[in-house]
Amino acid sequence: MPPTIGVFDSGFGGLTVLRALINRMPQARFAFIGDTARLPYGSKSRRTIARYAAQSAQFLVREQGAEFLVIACNTASALALDAIQDAVPVPVLGVIQPGATAARAASKTGDVLVIATDATVHSHAYLAACEALGLRAIEKACPLLVPLVEEGWTDHPVTAEVIEIYLNELRSEAAQLGFDPDTLVLGCTHYPLLRTLFEHAVRPGAKVIDSAESAAQAAVELFNGRASAPVQGSSLQTQVHCFATDSVEKFERLGSRFLGRPTGKVELVDLGG
Amino acid sequence: MPPTIGVFDSGFGGLTVLRALINRMPQARFAFIGDTARLPYGSKSRRTIARYAAQSAQFLVREQGAEFLVIACNTASALALDAIQDAVPVPVLGVIQPGATAARAASKTGDVLVIATDATVHSHAYLAACEALGLRAIEKACPLLVPLVEEGWTDHPVTAEVIEIYLNELRSEAAQLGFDPDTLVLGCTHYPLLRTLFEHAVRPGAKVIDSAESAAQAAVELFNGRASAPVQGSSLQTQVHCFATDSVEKFERLGSRFLGRPTGKVELVDLGG
Repeated sequence: MPPTIGVFDSGFGGLTVLRALINRMPQARFAFIGDTARLPYGSKSRRTIARYAAQSAQFLVREQGAEFLVIACNTASALALDAIQDAVPVPVLGVIQPGATAARAASKTGDVLVIATDATVHSHAYLAACEALGLRAIEKACPLLVPLVEEGWTDHPVTAEVIEIYLNELRSEAAQLGFDPDTLVLGCTHYPLLRTLFEHAVRPGAKVIDSAESAAQAAVELFNGRASAPVQGSSLQTQVHCFATDSVEKFERLGSRFLGRPTGKVELVDLGG
Repeated sequence: MPPTIGVFDSGFGGLTVLRALINRMPQARFAFIGDTARLPYGSKSRRTIARYAAQSAQFLVREQGAEFLVIACNTASALALDAIQDAVPVPVLGVIQPGATAARAASKTGDVLVIATDATVHSHAYLAACEALGLRAIEKACPLLVPLVEEGWTDHPVTAEVIEIYLNELRSEAAQLGFDPDTLVLGCTHYPLLRTLFEHAVRPGAKVIDSAESAAQAAVELFNGRASAPVQGSSLQTQVHCFATDSVEKFERLGSRFLGRPTGKVELVDLGG
């Protein structure tokens, strides 16, 4: 019986983390829930996000037998990691700490830029995680990027222009503070779909850190002691079960874009919201 | 004791309808609820929207004594008007029918364009309401416009460009169908904040219909038999109580932009979601 890893997001974005996990741990069984009836979390309060996230975490552990949880949502990781850890009796990994650790490894100047949702930025979770590692960080909320990804404009001139505007604002702020940033952290699981645009927009030589990849790598390291088999084999046979709290048709249609393959049949779940 | 009118939206956008209502019925008392913990409705399913909207409607009638409800949300009007009417024992007015009626009065060619959220468009509620009045209509979902308004980019070149892209797609479709549209219906309560950009983007002589204004006008007509005083006097003394299901600070901060004056103290309500 393979171990079950529970993966949670407010929507589809976390499927970029699931994708990275499947590639690294194809022998595991994955249960993913997207709380699509109540997305997006990025504009909501800590109290509301904590309540919602704890319900999804309990579903994954109690109903799906998850032995390990990955919070594939920057907003929930930033605002509700403690609440989720209190709500379930299994290890819980968020995406913030792995993102900061990867930034620490990538940056030569020690100055990094972090872009994320409103709620993630206002929590200053990335700032705290970066500062704990000796980095200086500037954070910026980029609320237009998620809708642009969901509109499918992942390679569109308007999206490139919006990214340019946001990054220019960040660079002005960095210059005023005397910072010399050489690393950009993508602090939202939607942003990896814009990775090509970001790589064009940052200055030559600067690194782009994808928190989905960083979290998957951290999950493998944490999980290695528990996994019965080495991280090998084809991901095509990996068991993946997806659940959503709203329209499964939309999840199935859009989800494959994030997961990089069909989501399979998605089951509707009522968390009582 | 002035009559109490309940006004409901998933968020802040419906405050444009409340603003139009206050201007026309300053002697009434208004109770507004924004279901901000579960917004946006525009990307959710009919079943979920109906459940959420019925809870808000019951709050306005049972807790606030509303004798009349205005559903200041195109998505809820399109998908849940029946469910709301079943949930409460008072008259309920949506924004779709008034918008279609105003388009009928404005259009000379009988062909209209309707822009709205995903859920409103997929419901085809505007199409049905327009066709019942003898109009031909083409609908288009414009999911980037709400985030652009909420980012405060109401007079920004990127927003003008996005509007141009959306309208060009609509015009191509109209040309292919042999339609000659001369009226654009703003089928989302966020869009009136972009009215100036829309008026620049439509062809000379074309009309822009604001469903917030149309709904307020219809409410006055429906309400006239009940109102104890004529529609006169200063709106500055109008009693307005606002409620939200999430962060009241954000509601107070952003809401004034839609209401055109301070929202006053907003109360947090738990609808159990």
